[in-house]
Amino acid sequence: MGKWWDEECGIVGVYGHPEAANLAYLCMYALQHRGQESAGIVSSTGSRMFSHRSMGLVQDVFNEDILMKLPGSLAIGHVRYSTAGSSLLKNAQPYAMESSRRGRLAVGHNGNLVNARAIRETLEDSGAIFQSATDTEVIVHLMAQAGSGRLIDKIGFATGQILGAFSAVFMTDKEVAGCRDPWGFRPLVVGKVKNAYILASETCALDLVGAIYEREVQPGEVVIINENGLTSYANMPTRKHARCVFEHIYFARPDSKIFGDSVYAVRKRLGAKLYEEQPAEADVVICVPDSGRVAAIGYAEAAGLPYEEGLIRNHYVGRTFIEPSHAIRNFGVKVKLNAVKSVLEGKRVVVVDDSIVRGTTCQKIVHMLREMGGAKEVHFRISSPPVTHPCYYGIDTPTKEELCYNVMDGNVSGICDFITAESLGYISVPGMLEAVRDGKDLGFCDACFTGNYPVTVIDDLENKQMELFLQEIE
Amino acid sequence: MGKWWDEECGIVGVYGHPEAANLAYLCMYALQHRGQESAGIVSSTGSRMFSHRSMGLVQDVFNEDILMKLPGSLAIGHVRYSTAGSSLLKNAQPYAMESSRRGRLAVGHNGNLVNARAIRETLEDSGAIFQSATDTEVIVHLMAQAGSGRLIDKIGFATGQILGAFSAVFMTDKEVAGCRDPWGFRPLVVGKVKNAYILASETCALDLVGAIYEREVQPGEVVIINENGLTSYANMPTRKHARCVFEHIYFARPDSKIFGDSVYAVRKRLGAKLYEEQPAEADVVICVPDSGRVAAIGYAEAAGLPYEEGLIRNHYVGRTFIEPSHAIRNFGVKVKLNAVKSVLEGKRVVVVDDSIVRGTTCQKIVHMLREMGGAKEVHFRISSPPVTHPCYYGIDTPTKEELCYNVMDGNVSGICDFITAESLGYISVPGMLEAVRDGKDLGFCDACFTGNYPVTVIDDLENKQMELFLQEIE
Amino acid sequence: MGKWWDEECGIVGVYGHPEAANLAYLCMYALQHRGQESAGIVSSTGSRMFSHRSMGLVQDVFNEDILMKLPGSLAIGHVRYSTAGSSLLKNAQPYAMESSRRGRLAVGHNGNLVNARAIRETLEDSGAIFQSATDTEVIVHLMAQAGSGRLIDKIGFATGQILGAFSAVFMTDKEVAGCRDPWGFRPLVVGKVKNAYILASETCALDLVGAIYEREVQPGEVVIINENGLTSYANMPTRKHARCVFEHIYFARPDSKIFGDSVYAVRKRLGAKLYEEQPAEADVVICVPDSGRVAAIGYAEAAGLPYEEGLIRNHYVGRTFIEPSHAIRNFGVKVKLNAVKSVLEGKRVVVVDDSIVRGTTCQKIVHMLREMGGAKEVHFRISSPPVTHPCYYGIDTPTKEELCYNVMDGNVSGICDFITAESLGYISVPGMLEAVRDGKDLGFCDACFTGNYPVTVIDDLENKQMELFLQEIE
Amino acid sequence: MGKWWDEECGIVGVYGHPEAANLAYLCMYALQHRGQESAGIVSSTGSRMFSHRSMGLVQDVFNEDILMKLPGSLAIGHVRYSTAGSSLLKNAQPYAMESSRRGRLAVGHNGNLVNARAIRETLEDSGAIFQSATDTEVIVHLMAQAGSGRLIDKIGFATGQILGAFSAVFMTDKEVAGCRDPWGFRPLVVGKVKNAYILASETCALDLVGAIYEREVQPGEVVIINENGLTSYANMPTRKHARCVFEHIYFARPDSKIFGDSVYAVRKRLGAKLYEEQPAEADVVICVPDSGRVAAIGYAEAAGLPYEEGLIRNHYVGRTFIEPSHAIRNFGVKVKLNAVKSVLEGKRVVVVDDSIVRGTTCQKIVHMLREMGGAKEVHFRISSPPVTHPCYYGIDTPTKEELCYNVMDGNVSGICDFITAESLGYISVPGMLEAVRDGKDLGFCDACFTGNYPVTVIDDLENKQMELFLQEIE
Repeated sequence: MGKWWDEECGIVGVYGHPEAANLAYLCMYALQHRGQESAGIVSSTGSRMFSHRSMGLVQDVFNEDILMKLPGSLAIGHVRYSTAGSSLLKNAQPYAMESSRRGRLAVGHNGNLVNARAIRETLEDSGAIFQSATDTEVIVHLMAQAGSGRLIDKIGFATGQILGAFSAVFMTDKEVAGCRDPWGFRPLVVGKVKNAYILASETCALDLVGAIYEREVQPGEVVIINENGLTSYANMPTRKHARCVFEHIYFARPDSKIFGDSVYAVRKRLGAKLYEEQPAEADVVICVPDSGRVAAIGYAEAAGLPYEEGLIRNHYVGRTFIEPSHAIRNFGVKVKLNAVKSVLEGKRVVVVDDSIVRGTTCQKIVHMLREMGGAKEVHFRISSPPVTHPCYYGIDTPTKEELCYNVMDGNVSGICDFITAESLGYISVPGMLEAVRDGKDLGFCDACFTGNYPVTVIDDLENKQMELFLQEIE
Repeated sequence: MGKWWDEECGIVGVYGHPEAANLAYLCMYALQHRGQESAGIVSSTGSRMFSHRSMGLVQDVFNEDILMKLPGSLAIGHVRYSTAGSSLLKNAQPYAMESSRRGRLAVGHNGNLVNARAIRETLEDSGAIFQSATDTEVIVHLMAQAGSGRLIDKIGFATGQILGAFSAVFMTDKEVAGCRDPWGFRPLVVGKVKNAYILASETCALDLVGAIYEREVQPGEVVIINENGLTSYANMPTRKHARCVFEHIYFARPDSKIFGDSVYAVRKRLGAKLYEEQPAEADVVICVPDSGRVAAIGYAEAAGLPYEEGLIRNHYVGRTFIEPSHAIRNFGVKVKLNAVKSVLEGKRVVVVDDSIVRGTTCQKIVHMLREMGGAKEVHFRISSPPVTHPCYYGIDTPTKEELCYNVMDGNVSGICDFITAESLGYISVPGMLEAVRDGKDLGFCDACFTGNYPVTVIDDLENKQMELFLQEIE
Repeated sequence: MGKWWDEECGIVGVYGHPEAANLAYLCMYALQHRGQESAGIVSSTGSRMFSHRSMGLVQDVFNEDILMKLPGSLAIGHVRYSTAGSSLLKNAQPYAMESSRRGRLAVGHNGNLVNARAIRETLEDSGAIFQSATDTEVIVHLMAQAGSGRLIDKIGFATGQILGAFSAVFMTDKEVAGCRDPWGFRPLVVGKVKNAYILASETCALDLVGAIYEREVQPGEVVIINENGLTSYANMPTRKHARCVFEHIYFARPDSKIFGDSVYAVRKRLGAKLYEEQPAEADVVICVPDSGRVAAIGYAEAAGLPYEEGLIRNHYVGRTFIEPSHAIRNFGVKVKLNAVKSVLEGKRVVVVDDSIVRGTTCQKIVHMLREMGGAKEVHFRISSPPVTHPCYYGIDTPTKEELCYNVMDGNVSGICDFITAESLGYISVPGMLEAVRDGKDLGFCDACFTGNYPVTVIDDLENKQMELFLQEIE
Repeated sequence: MGKWWDEECGIVGVYGHPEAANLAYLCMYALQHRGQESAGIVSSTGSRMFSHRSMGLVQDVFNEDILMKLPGSLAIGHVRYSTAGSSLLKNAQPYAMESSRRGRLAVGHNGNLVNARAIRETLEDSGAIFQSATDTEVIVHLMAQAGSGRLIDKIGFATGQILGAFSAVFMTDKEVAGCRDPWGFRPLVVGKVKNAYILASETCALDLVGAIYEREVQPGEVVIINENGLTSYANMPTRKHARCVFEHIYFARPDSKIFGDSVYAVRKRLGAKLYEEQPAEADVVICVPDSGRVAAIGYAEAAGLPYEEGLIRNHYVGRTFIEPSHAIRNFGVKVKLNAVKSVLEGKRVVVVDDSIVRGTTCQKIVHMLREMGGAKEVHFRISSPPVTHPCYYGIDTPTKEELCYNVMDGNVSGICDFITAESLGYISVPGMLEAVRDGKDLGFCDACFTGNYPVTVIDDLENKQMELFLQEIE
């Protein structure tokens, strides 16, 4: 059902195209699912930079007039959902700075650092002043301290000190760069359209601008793109790879390829493996739209059961919908979903979703399937294991205490009773990893399911928001 | 693909609920797909009426503050996409009037009259002044001329003179009423939640507020709801029934029941019949999301082929998206859809949609499936017959000259060549009617496919917009 | 101090200028003091009309883009402060109508009818439907009933039935017209700029567009301007003239000429006469800015005392200022005015204003002059007699019970005690009339000072607002 | 006429009042004439700070809701017109920073530094990053470098390095402070309301909140206000006093007391001295409203001539007025002013203003007085000497080349011919200083009239805007 697993950011870089800002805009539009809170583009003509950032969706933040005021053949772009740093314009990215001696620099960052606060305090002790609460500003301060050398050296100086998840794009007057942290938490791909290079979080951005997918930026790799083309550097320490498995399960668009694999194919395999581990005697398989659809198709195919659309989503659900306070209390998911009686009536129904955040939503869906749809039995199946630990690498998760599985002390049959389903089944962690890997030898981070954190958390991240001293009212 | 077949309106009436406006709001929210241009509610406390109407989506037009200023246990609501009357606030509905002698009246109307202009000219000759270009104002003027009698008599006086499509809701200080024209073009259903009555265009509105579906308002029936409960009247002339078949094919939500039948079930039958009439040698069936999904599932099931999601829709496509003028020319549907390579690569693909409006869109989809997705063959299948004639009963269709099928002189293989598919197949008119009726004896209007118009058009509807003398700049 | 004596409207008509809407806009800008609630222009190209009306100031309602969409060489304009009809967009003027048989008509009206409700009820009995609560709509309905004759005949038909104050402008496709009621309550002047005619409420509008003042439209006169130039008609009954004396005292701009006389000169004479009737032993004369300035200069000159600016007005006082609820309670006029110690300290001060609405404001001014300014004595002088009766001819006055003078039972020394001044003096009614007339034989309405109403009030005007049945929330 | 001499800023500090933000708001409202571009308040509860800053007028930026979200008994406020730093939200003040080790600090600044750029470059060399182009950020960076000591020490460290004009307010969690640069360019006063202290640019702010004027902050003085009351420090170097004489001539409100003297009294003395130096044979004295009014009254009194209001100002002139491009070309000042014929006709008129910026405006006024008003002779008198040099201490002046007097090579009779007046007279520099000082021994800066700059300009201020590298589109 998502909506709690808020994705953090999407990033874009464009080098060598006469309409760099337009391309960045389109790429960000394709990456909108990765962040709906703010959007920004900084472009460069080679001697001057232009910037526009604002709260809102890409299509609302930009228009033709604004894009025309972002000239140049270099651009980087960013869509953001806040993780660290609250919902303020000043936290919008890309972050841009200028020094009369050392020139201009713009940075956009996806991920979350686990030692940003510690670094920040050290910098403040030497007189530095911070404007925002973003990790990006920490990166920029480190780069400023690296002196007036080459971009790759500044990036090396900064990435040598930060820990955690960071896929990032950089821009100076004449260069665009990208990097991934050595664990490879967040995706970043390279594509080409004619002679222009595109960096983007997912391949769906390349598809929209007609760019050909070249390859992933590798974990720990820095790519510098300038008049000499793309040069690859490997100046970060080597780490055990820890790709975010939730990118495949939920965040990425099913039409994207990330970590070298098709998201759609991974989800179908998860559905099939889910059936293998958690079969059900049933008449029909449906999904919770749209998050559970591909896994449901995989489940149905593996089970040899018909796939139907038993829940219909209202396409006009928007951010501004306000449930009238008294009218129909707790009608919850009804505002988003409705059951289709002709699909469900008298049937034993398997309903597939990608995760359970709050049990109450599942409970309402089971109730809807039964009461409004007339389902005889409801078997809930989840294409990810139970989430038991918060993420510190860039995803906005509930606290440990809020997680449904923890609330029920890991008692699955208790959760099943609570949601009033006939049965409930999650995929197992090994099953999930097997389905995701499909025989390849790829390292993934599964900390949210296992608590095995690949990088030690230095800062007190639970209280990260608290450090904001000043409450801006906007 | 819709977007050309713009639905005209959705209507709602609530009687006997302490939060009538809140219920109307929720119902309108469920009916948002029927009209996205303006929304309005008029409520009554029994001695006073309150109104709010504005351009925009239901969730943007209303908020808790505004709903609190619409007190009373009676309310009617309206969502609108302009057919007659241009996109102006003054054309927003419900239309409300007051006469110091004859009291208050509010009306909301779905459909299109074919003799409104003729009636209007007669009324103007006797000194009447019109404020808007809506059919609704004509109905209200006729009711005002009926004198100071009972509501049913005023409705009878008006409906005795108007011709065409009209499902409507009415409200006086203490009564709510609803009616359907004697042909039954547009749907209208009755539900109950506790002691309150709900009138709504589709059952999905009843579902959202937890109301139980009672029955359809019948073609030619007027229902008056007041302190004596619901009373049914049949004071209109009898006509041959002509339910709009396009409501089932495209307009209505698949989770609704209209004309006594499940829209989802009808669409699955259309898909199955489409396979029967237009089979294809293929490996996989996909849909054009979301309009073709249910028919595609029906087609796949009948064909015994796997159903997959080979095209992914960008959920953030909004009204304000502006394609940068130069960047990527003609990237057309790419902004809405993307192909999934892992589903399509090397496959013979059947792609199902509910209709073809402009061949160019189909052409781009075929191109996308082949170039981006790697499909080996593309077989396009349409779950409605070719549209050949404009609608005069409340749907905003292209003119005869713009319709793809007419442009190609009805040459299906020419269209197939144009869209570069391996094959193209439409369901036949008899096949469609058989699938929709499913053995029942129900009259449908199929004028847009056949030109058999059930009511003669009196006004010059092609030029209806022209009568607006005064260009308001808003 | 104004702010209670809200002026009702300003009207403009332009004939024969290629940029008619631009000229109307500028004239309305000069007449902004007559109405700040809404503004509207209707223009005509001879065969088509264009309209824009909105809530707000002229400069906010219009911009270059909008004015470019109002083409044609004919235009009428209107600025409005609501008297009858509440603050709704639908009450904004000019009011425009169209009949397919009888063509287009736009009307803008300044004044207030005293039998509009009675006429309206009669029209409603014959089936007419009203959209707004304005007198203007009544005039238009009457004109519509007059059939398809000449504009002058339609105006004659309507003005033959209405009673009260009405200066109005009219526009058809090819004609602009203006009229004043036979009592001549509200002003209307004619000017020319090259070959174009301008009608406007005051001459300051002519000055701004460089038009030469020609003459007043006479009480009871209709002027029709078309390709034959200006033609004068006198088809209304003759009435005893009753020009609104408050136009001279407060409403009109001091740089205007109305009723054939300079407003500035009239106000200086009122100040001089006020000194003659109400002298004071004092050291300095100051005004309440800006309303009392000209009369204060006249008073000072007649008294041979120095004139100073002892109160300074904050020019940034706007509609949106909200007094923080707790901070400084009752600081009242301080937000608008501040005392100048170097002018006032130790002085006997005469302070002149044009009227007293609420004694509390005067009290605060006296307090401010004494406490903040250090004035030794404060002598309040008012250049109009006490207001004792409400106006029914187009000015929004307090009710009888709210008027300061009535509250104190006409006890001037009681009012003086209340406002804590050393003395208080009003000009007398005969003194005022003598000063205004300056030897000429001109009829004025002084009903607000005397209760001598020149036209009997037919409708129940105190409750005029009540007839609004439907509360629109905008 | 102002409008070119844009004032830069107004500042406010409140200590020890339960509604500190409300008081700051009211003070800023009274100081609105000093800056209309942005407004901001930072408040402190002693342990937390709250901030709101936005583009726009005080009354538009704040409302009751926002003020309620600014709790605490300490607050500082700022209104701004941009001098250095362009019109961007990020340049809005007060500027607030936080260091996890060294706590919170907010600063608001009025004036302009002449070595800010030099300091900034040095700071950047040591790795500092700047967000805005304001002098204030330079001050804050210097204070951050001063380490973790007392507020007075930080202020001392910063003010020891900066040169130029700076009146400033400071706030930490528990202290409010104020200072003036050692030259005393810009005003700053202290007042008390009950036990609360108020710092403000002018006394009119004290008057509005009912505070009693205590005294000026002296040039070079720092006042720290905390639980021990107000403590005065004199830790800046001593400089020759250079109060801005233009504050008296034009910027300050006439009801204010600044530099220990009544602005109204100074302006009357300037008017009288102007008559003494530049008499005229005339019948009447008028002013250009509102800037020339007080000097005109002084001139008339000294000359023994009647004072009248011969030009009337349109009170609704707003920022959004757009002159229609074609209608009435070059109607210039007519949109703001109109002539009063009854005052001017046939008269020899002296018209007084405080300064001449562009000769074309004067020319239009002379033309208006003659053509529209019928004046026989026009004698222009200016209550300041000709401006010949730009200001580098906080006022936005035209460049040397744009100044009217320079354009005409200091040829007064040439200017007189250009504006088509019968005569033109400026007050002399010695005459001005005599009138302003009135016998007191006070140092003033008259650099804009003489070029005698009291502080050497270090930065290239003419190009100060250029340093903004990044064009933000907002």
